[in-house]
Amino acid sequence: MRVVIALGGNAMTSADGRARPEDQIAAIQRAAGPIADVVAAGAEVVLTHGNGPQVGNLLVKNEMAAHVVPPVPLDWCGAQTQGTVGFVLLNELSARLADQQVAALVTRALVDPLDPGFMNPSKPIGRYLPSAEAALMIQHGQRWEDRGERGWRRIVASPEPRAILDAPAVQALLAAGYVVVCNGGGGIPVVRESDGRLRGVEAVIDKDLGAALLAHTLGADTLVIATDVEAAVVGWGTPGARPLGAVDVASMRKLAAEGHFASGSMGPKVEAACRFAENGGRSVITSLDHIADAVHETVGTVVTKEI
Amino acid sequence: MRVVIALGGNAMTSADGRARPEDQIAAIQRAAGPIADVVAAGAEVVLTHGNGPQVGNLLVKNEMAAHVVPPVPLDWCGAQTQGTVGFVLLNELSARLADQQVAALVTRALVDPLDPGFMNPSKPIGRYLPSAEAALMIQHGQRWEDRGERGWRRIVASPEPRAILDAPAVQALLAAGYVVVCNGGGGIPVVRESDGRLRGVEAVIDKDLGAALLAHTLGADTLVIATDVEAAVVGWGTPGARPLGAVDVASMRKLAAEGHFASGSMGPKVEAACRFAENGGRSVITSLDHIADAVHETVGTVVTKEI
Repeated sequence: MRVVIALGGNAMTSADGRARPEDQIAAIQRAAGPIADVVAAGAEVVLTHGNGPQVGNLLVKNEMAAHVVPPVPLDWCGAQTQGTVGFVLLNELSARLADQQVAALVTRALVDPLDPGFMNPSKPIGRYLPSAEAALMIQHGQRWEDRGERGWRRIVASPEPRAILDAPAVQALLAAGYVVVCNGGGGIPVVRESDGRLRGVEAVIDKDLGAALLAHTLGADTLVIATDVEAAVVGWGTPGARPLGAVDVASMRKLAAEGHFASGSMGPKVEAACRFAENGGRSVITSLDHIADAVHETVGTVVTKEI
Repeated sequence: MRVVIALGGNAMTSADGRARPEDQIAAIQRAAGPIADVVAAGAEVVLTHGNGPQVGNLLVKNEMAAHVVPPVPLDWCGAQTQGTVGFVLLNELSARLADQQVAALVTRALVDPLDPGFMNPSKPIGRYLPSAEAALMIQHGQRWEDRGERGWRRIVASPEPRAILDAPAVQALLAAGYVVVCNGGGGIPVVRESDGRLRGVEAVIDKDLGAALLAHTLGADTLVIATDVEAAVVGWGTPGARPLGAVDVASMRKLAAEGHFASGSMGPKVEAACRFAENGGRSVITSLDHIADAVHETVGTVVTKEI
């Protein structure tokens, strides 16, 4: 049984969304227990994680120190968060997995330079700025959009991940008995130049879509998308709201098309779950404290090709 | 033939020491050729690297954005550089190593909480500040020292690396045929708490001492310390200056005790070379463009237990 677990923001930050180092360590400590339970149940485990708040902080640092030290591009910010989140996950899991070993890999995702995402950037990242400051960033070649009363926000491309380039190294470590932390932030986006060279690009890959591709590439049995709710819900916020249990891909896509899942939050999780299930896998959307059960039982929202 | 190559600052920054992203990428592109030659000669290759200028930049960002986003500790800065340098090395080596695969691991080095380095911090890091600004950092619990006319500088502990905790994962990837990038900056320093948990500490491990321990742990045949000179030199800056060729450990230690090697630059390289050679390995100190020759021939300074 091979399981890919995609850790959401709540496994990385405090309940109020703060991302101080101590918040991140405390959140990962809490996540480490349920993860260790999945390992103890005998599964091969691959962990991936989001990095939104962390990248947001790095962008602020880039900006505020730009007159003294050179800013680094967005792909490097992603690489930095793979380093720090990987480091903390290594420490917290090392303490809990007596015999099992853990490794953290720097992982890249190949994207297509002609991806429509690059023509129509749509992913807001980082903090809000007043228009005058946003105008300055626009002069530096960035795209910023007026988001109403909170101010302006940077908009970047969110291209489709086409291949998880470092998946073979993940396979090698799994084969050697490791729990593998990898593909943080959906993978560091790179394009292949005409001369074959790989080059980082300033974009953000959806971490759940990256996780779905990783799970498929690794031939995983189950993809667990760990979030802060027990299940995906239809009619969210209405009297008829009901959590979804076992659902087939076609029904799930129909519900998505009807607008049941918010585009910035549950939407991509549902899409990721459908993609992996479409290829024959079992996708589960549930909360962190249910992930151990999710591997064997029907908890949360379980998406499969057919029920 | 297993080889650990420790890349120095000149493989990471421009000739004038600049560390903009484009400088780092260009430097790593230049280093990739000689590294690929070592791989092509049939050696199993492990790469490790320094991170001084990169960490210096991250500390400035920490400081300048501290009123908006939380600074991250020094161990996290090290993890961040393992992410970015690993990312760039992956890209540049992927382009050159057709069949051979490359992987980059987040790597920790265990240090002793009672290491004398913690009682007497001695390693200057980051930029110089005027005394008033340094005083502010001292109030925040950091140690800063007056370094004369250039100003004040932060001083941190540089403890001995006791174990490269993630060396087993390096072994697993080598066994699977990978070139492995790891232990950047000498390894991210961690201590083991009394309850068994690992915790990052604010310290800097000498990257060459970390490389020597890594090479020993991996049972490597050769440790190549790649720097910007062809060999270690005795009588540096005097008319009697001469490069050292093949030297035994005892002679090398005698020269070091006589003060032939500068404490901040060649000194730790010589100490690292001696440690690895003492345990039966072959250590080579030479320039980046000689590393392929260094694996099989006598180029640069070659330190062995006995000649």
